[in-house]
Amino acid sequence: MDEIITLDYGSGGKKTSGLIEKMILPAWKNPALSELGDGAVLKGAPEIVFSTDSFVVDPLFFPGGDIGKLAVCGTLNDVAMCGGIPKYLSCSFIIEEGLRAEELEKIIASMKKAAGSAGVQIVTGDTKVVEKGRGDGIYINTSGIGFLKHPGLSPGNIRPGDAVIVSGTVGDHGTAVMLARNGMLQSELKSDCADLSGLADLVLSSAGGPGKIRVLRDPTRGGAATTLNEFIENTGLCIELDENRIPVRSEVFAACEILGLDPLYCANEGKMICICSLDAADKTVEIMRGTKEGENAAIIGTVSEKYPGSVVMKTAAGGSRILRKLTGAQLPRIC
Amino acid sequence: MDEIITLDYGSGGKKTSGLIEKMILPAWKNPALSELGDGAVLKGAPEIVFSTDSFVVDPLFFPGGDIGKLAVCGTLNDVAMCGGIPKYLSCSFIIEEGLRAEELEKIIASMKKAAGSAGVQIVTGDTKVVEKGRGDGIYINTSGIGFLKHPGLSPGNIRPGDAVIVSGTVGDHGTAVMLARNGMLQSELKSDCADLSGLADLVLSSAGGPGKIRVLRDPTRGGAATTLNEFIENTGLCIELDENRIPVRSEVFAACEILGLDPLYCANEGKMICICSLDAADKTVEIMRGTKEGENAAIIGTVSEKYPGSVVMKTAAGGSRILRKLTGAQLPRIC
Repeated sequence: MDEIITLDYGSGGKKTSGLIEKMILPAWKNPALSELGDGAVLKGAPEIVFSTDSFVVDPLFFPGGDIGKLAVCGTLNDVAMCGGIPKYLSCSFIIEEGLRAEELEKIIASMKKAAGSAGVQIVTGDTKVVEKGRGDGIYINTSGIGFLKHPGLSPGNIRPGDAVIVSGTVGDHGTAVMLARNGMLQSELKSDCADLSGLADLVLSSAGGPGKIRVLRDPTRGGAATTLNEFIENTGLCIELDENRIPVRSEVFAACEILGLDPLYCANEGKMICICSLDAADKTVEIMRGTKEGENAAIIGTVSEKYPGSVVMKTAAGGSRILRKLTGAQLPRIC
Repeated sequence: MDEIITLDYGSGGKKTSGLIEKMILPAWKNPALSELGDGAVLKGAPEIVFSTDSFVVDPLFFPGGDIGKLAVCGTLNDVAMCGGIPKYLSCSFIIEEGLRAEELEKIIASMKKAAGSAGVQIVTGDTKVVEKGRGDGIYINTSGIGFLKHPGLSPGNIRPGDAVIVSGTVGDHGTAVMLARNGMLQSELKSDCADLSGLADLVLSSAGGPGKIRVLRDPTRGGAATTLNEFIENTGLCIELDENRIPVRSEVFAACEILGLDPLYCANEGKMICICSLDAADKTVEIMRGTKEGENAAIIGTVSEKYPGSVVMKTAAGGSRILRKLTGAQLPRIC
């Protein structure tokens, strides 16, 4: 391996093989990947969950994570939110010529760690290299396959009276990345980047029977406010939030003040929003709080028919505010 | 939709939804995609084939195809080469701010056409936008899931005496793209970009019983010479080629002379190399020749033990030449 990645490493020839055999295979070793075929042949299941995401976060390394951990957790979480147990990941790198091999190695190690602790295998991949100035260090696509364990989750299940739960503090990832990007590193503020597949399975398995959990989603780009809007747009339903009940870290609150951001529109990478029937709400929060990822879980609102199609928040000051979908590019390249 | 794609379209908010709802969904409409969940829930199978590729081809549009068609066919072909029948694709865009909406629309239409004629659905996706100068128009990742129909294909099956077959002329894609990139458009020379999944299934179903076809692979980056080396490296086997039998279009030959390239190292995007037992070789070529994609199929060599680990070619001039794996970046961003 050279010290920097050159265009040669994307040629499909010797250098590409070298990169795969010397850096990737030793880290991610598993039988499917080691075949180095055009794809991987895998044990399947009657129903599968399939998801994809490309990660372009800037900077590549930030407090609480890096693009590799994010690329693994982000896709695992999407599979988990659909009721799947994640099993396999693909990984495709688009590297900008000039990336230091050492950085790539750190990213690969971070992906290994994240995938390993989630019990998933990275089974197939691809590496492209683009010229200097045609990328930004590295972009990573992961696609994930899971086996469906909890069928039927959908915003279409949401009913008036349902509870709105968030699994923890909002806005951690977005503010941590924005601070890191601006060189304002603050040791207390970390991305929440985490694998939620265990938590999602636990909630879906234990929260009081099939159908009680209506839908799960991880509020990444656009933040919690955008996800809640996605749930009820084009329906006759309303989500009423109580600002006092929404968990926000004081550091996040302070950083948002400085950056002119709203935690409800900041990306999260280790939180989920759960809509469930009212009678399952306390139990669900209790289950979440028993885990590391869900220790700050809270009921933050209810579903009603008061303002059809709107997310409305009772503010801490006692007023009320309509939360629409994120408009514009508040936080580009956050994930 | 605005006329150009701005960073707003990658925010995960209103503009992102607008792009998906106005441009992508109408083109690719299917039940799984229309759910717009974090992933797609799909009918599975006992054994699945999974593949991924990111496409960074430059230019985006070239004679015989574009990045969209390439992104669909490339991944379908990888699934097919593993013995799978492709069923589902994911699609993830990394768009450089400033891409014209009209170009994106053409690419989306091209993907729809390619996926439609192959009978696969694009079921889940992602859109990111990066700043001007951090990408190059658009990069596309597709990942593909297929159901395994023809198990057991592997270079490990190759035996001395086997035949080496190529499904048609070599070097078409690489030379077409290089000419287009250099502004030397030549109407006769087109990329061979094509879906090979039908051809692969036909060959595997008809070529004389299980096990006769040892391995299939589509020789993309690195070309036919690199693929053949991959098959036999670290084995005691040798591949002996006969240059006179390798089909090369005269336009490709001429273009390679001008560009200083070798057709055997130029990427193909609609060809496959098949190693099969000698007694199945004529039948396999006949089957290929009965199809549009395989009309120029030919037996180009045999497997022996003469020079272990080497691909050796008897040249047209009567000499012999060792073909190693591609070294360096002969053709960056060819796919």
